Amino acid sequence: MTPSITVSQAMIDAYAAISGDFNPVHVDPEFAAGTPFGQTIAHGCIPMEPIFQLVQGRLGVAVLPQGTGMTLRYLRPCHPGDTIEIVVKADGPEEGMAFQCVNQRGEAVIEGVVRLAQGGAG
Amino acid sequence: MTPSITVSQAMIDAYAAISGDFNPVHVDPEFAAGTPFGQTIAHGCIPMEPIFQLVQGRLGVAVLPQGTGMTLRYLRPCHPGDTIEIVVKADGPEEGMAFQCVNQRGEAVIEGVVRLAQGGAG
Repeated sequence: MTPSITVSQAMIDAYAAISGDFNPVHVDPEFAAGTPFGQTIAHGCIPMEPIFQLVQGRLGVAVLPQGTGMTLRYLRPCHPGDTIEIVVKADGPEEGMAFQCVNQRGEAVIEGVVRLAQGGAG
Repeated sequence: MTPSITVSQAMIDAYAAISGDFNPVHVDPEFAAGTPFGQTIAHGCIPMEPIFQLVQGRLGVAVLPQGTGMTLRYLRPCHPGDTIEIVVKADGPEEGMAFQCVNQRGEAVIEGVVRLAQGGAG
């Protein structure tokens, strides 16, 4: 199963309750429709979820190993209705696993690299 | 107000519902008590929340500017009852803002650097 997440307004509302970030650009569709975004935006953690799924699935672990490093770059907002999948672009013991989190239109939402701690002296 | 988050089992349970990650190490305190962690662990996004709060508060924006980059390193697990605050270690236009997310014992849970996109050619 490809690690992915399908975003809903209910999911964004639930994350607002966790984080305390109830900015209307996240939780008020009518307000958000009047912004340049045109619709509500998921909090930045939500489109990261496939990264955790992928790493944990590959390693067969429930949590990221301590020392795991990650580089992220946020490229596009993520909206209700979007399905975000993670695509591995390169993978090696030295350079880490380069990935993109892409939406259903193939647009990169986040790109980055994960470096696992295992065996690292770092 | 210092950007922070106080973690609860209810918060972890809510994030499990968002992510679909109901691993017992997150949601079953009895199970988690028998693991090396000794108690449940928050999903990796939860201790990141003060990073978003800090950046958005400083910039006065509701979401991370597109192109924002972030380097993270997970150092310790985060448990219910922990309060995670973000401490800025260094900040400059070139090198970005180096931070640590620390728990109530002063232990770093995540360390990293945020680089804002504004004005960057990258």
